[in-house]
Amino acid sequence: MHILIIGAAGMVGRKLTAALTGSGLLAGQAITRLSLADIVVPELPAGGIASTAVAADLSQPGVAAQLVAERPEVIFHLAAIVSGEAEADFEKGYRINLDGTRHLLEAIRLESRHAPYCPRLVFTSSIAVFGEPLPAVIGDAHEHTPLTSYGTQKAICELLLADYSRRGFVDGVGIRLPTIAVRPGKPNKAASGFFSGIIREPLAGQEALLPVADSVRHWFASPRAAVGFLLHAAGMDTRLLGNQRNLSMSGLATTVGEQIAALGRVAGPQAVALIKRVPDSTIAGIVAGWPQAFEAKRARALGFVGETSFDEIIAIHIEDELGGRIG
Amino acid sequence: MHILIIGAAGMVGRKLTAALTGSGLLAGQAITRLSLADIVVPELPAGGIASTAVAADLSQPGVAAQLVAERPEVIFHLAAIVSGEAEADFEKGYRINLDGTRHLLEAIRLESRHAPYCPRLVFTSSIAVFGEPLPAVIGDAHEHTPLTSYGTQKAICELLLADYSRRGFVDGVGIRLPTIAVRPGKPNKAASGFFSGIIREPLAGQEALLPVADSVRHWFASPRAAVGFLLHAAGMDTRLLGNQRNLSMSGLATTVGEQIAALGRVAGPQAVALIKRVPDSTIAGIVAGWPQAFEAKRARALGFVGETSFDEIIAIHIEDELGGRIG
Repeated sequence: MHILIIGAAGMVGRKLTAALTGSGLLAGQAITRLSLADIVVPELPAGGIASTAVAADLSQPGVAAQLVAERPEVIFHLAAIVSGEAEADFEKGYRINLDGTRHLLEAIRLESRHAPYCPRLVFTSSIAVFGEPLPAVIGDAHEHTPLTSYGTQKAICELLLADYSRRGFVDGVGIRLPTIAVRPGKPNKAASGFFSGIIREPLAGQEALLPVADSVRHWFASPRAAVGFLLHAAGMDTRLLGNQRNLSMSGLATTVGEQIAALGRVAGPQAVALIKRVPDSTIAGIVAGWPQAFEAKRARALGFVGETSFDEIIAIHIEDELGGRIG
Repeated sequence: MHILIIGAAGMVGRKLTAALTGSGLLAGQAITRLSLADIVVPELPAGGIASTAVAADLSQPGVAAQLVAERPEVIFHLAAIVSGEAEADFEKGYRINLDGTRHLLEAIRLESRHAPYCPRLVFTSSIAVFGEPLPAVIGDAHEHTPLTSYGTQKAICELLLADYSRRGFVDGVGIRLPTIAVRPGKPNKAASGFFSGIIREPLAGQEALLPVADSVRHWFASPRAAVGFLLHAAGMDTRLLGNQRNLSMSGLATTVGEQIAALGRVAGPQAVALIKRVPDSTIAGIVAGWPQAFEAKRARALGFVGETSFDEIIAIHIEDELGGRIG
């Protein structure tokens, strides 16, 4: 099986690559070839699978066709610019997040003109497709009224994925990932950064700023769960999806206060003491518009399994990022 | 006020043109100029308003920029290829229905770089944005899971209209028209054609075929109501829409049986006798997947008024198309 990962240099892309090369299998089949692409050349993985890595900007003419010309059976499309950047640079957001995906879908459709070709395409969408008015728990049939250009671009790509799948041009699965926590790496300026920072920094003996109230509730999955969702989407029986190719993933609804309590249970009060409450009304305002929880009944029924406690999410971070030890 | 109508040669476009030239006003303001565009040159209206008519294909580079360069204050964008054609010709559907609209939005955004410009843009969407699973009555917050490429293209344009409006590039209102009945003109091959045919043909003393059961329920507005929706959308206070720029119009939910009963009341049993029941399982299957009724609470609260009985819809047809007389 030949697998293509577009967006392989990002955090989720690297973990997905490691999982695939680690097992050598996808959906029980041996992986014979791994093609990695991103805007910068992704690192080639260690291990026995024949791998290539290329720099590729899907939004440029002909690039998608080149990637697809080698007819990978499974394509993971993770490439996107993030919400803040898509809001700051309107043209770039539409070029990368919309045109890039559309070029990929078109390249797949046109490739099938030479000989039958209908790869599995796993697309990472986002809970940013949802906007006001938001209920406390968002059902599987909730409308898409995004409040950002990023969310608009993801919602449009979901519609395209469903239509191209309905027409038989691609075998698509769109997965709306929860906010990923605990994100490894350095603090960043994303409005959601603190959700990871208040766990990651104290576990490393460092101070973390908390800009919102303890009562703020949000929707999470670990990086490991995110990779699990991608692998499950790549192997699932898509006949079960009917024409509804996009799914809100299962996740964990939890408050900042519960996150902190979990940190205390795992790493003690000295870790909790490293969290400094510095209210920031701008961040609080942004976060107030975000989804708090999802029903995710369809995803659960289809076997997409997330975490059930924040203790578990912290334990995964310690295992996968800290070598099993708290610093 | 300078008004541009794109898609002015179609049935609704011609009626809209006639309404505007008839009153000389839009939202209480005098119309000083009317620009008409369509894939074929629209007919110039009689009357005192300075009018121009051009053939224009929005999907071609530069065409939208030319139309927008004259800075119309109100733009009606009605141009689209219909559902059946978008399904039969995948590339043409995306080119006309998606790229055409996107070019228009981009042309408006880029025009504002020279000097402030944010026209009112009224876009005709469709109830085809809705697909399975469909409740008996579709609420204002129902998700979009279109089952046709046409519905997908309209749903994408709605998302773009909302995002461009949120960003302040355009002042957009998207209106999802009910099925228009009674459509004037000759029978066509649209799957929905019989809804008009079973009224129009008997009123003209001709036979009409009915391919579905009398129990089939669907959602209607007259051509006159459709023009009323467009005019209201052009003049309304869009601050009332918030970020949700697209609305399911109000309409009338009625069954084929009720349509026929109304025909009998208006034109007698000899008209009803001209309806021949010739079941067609293909058409019945297509129609079974269509919306039956909408709540349309938002539209009604915002002053979009449709018909309340099919008798009224038939009376409008007789008044507007038959000179007030049954033939």
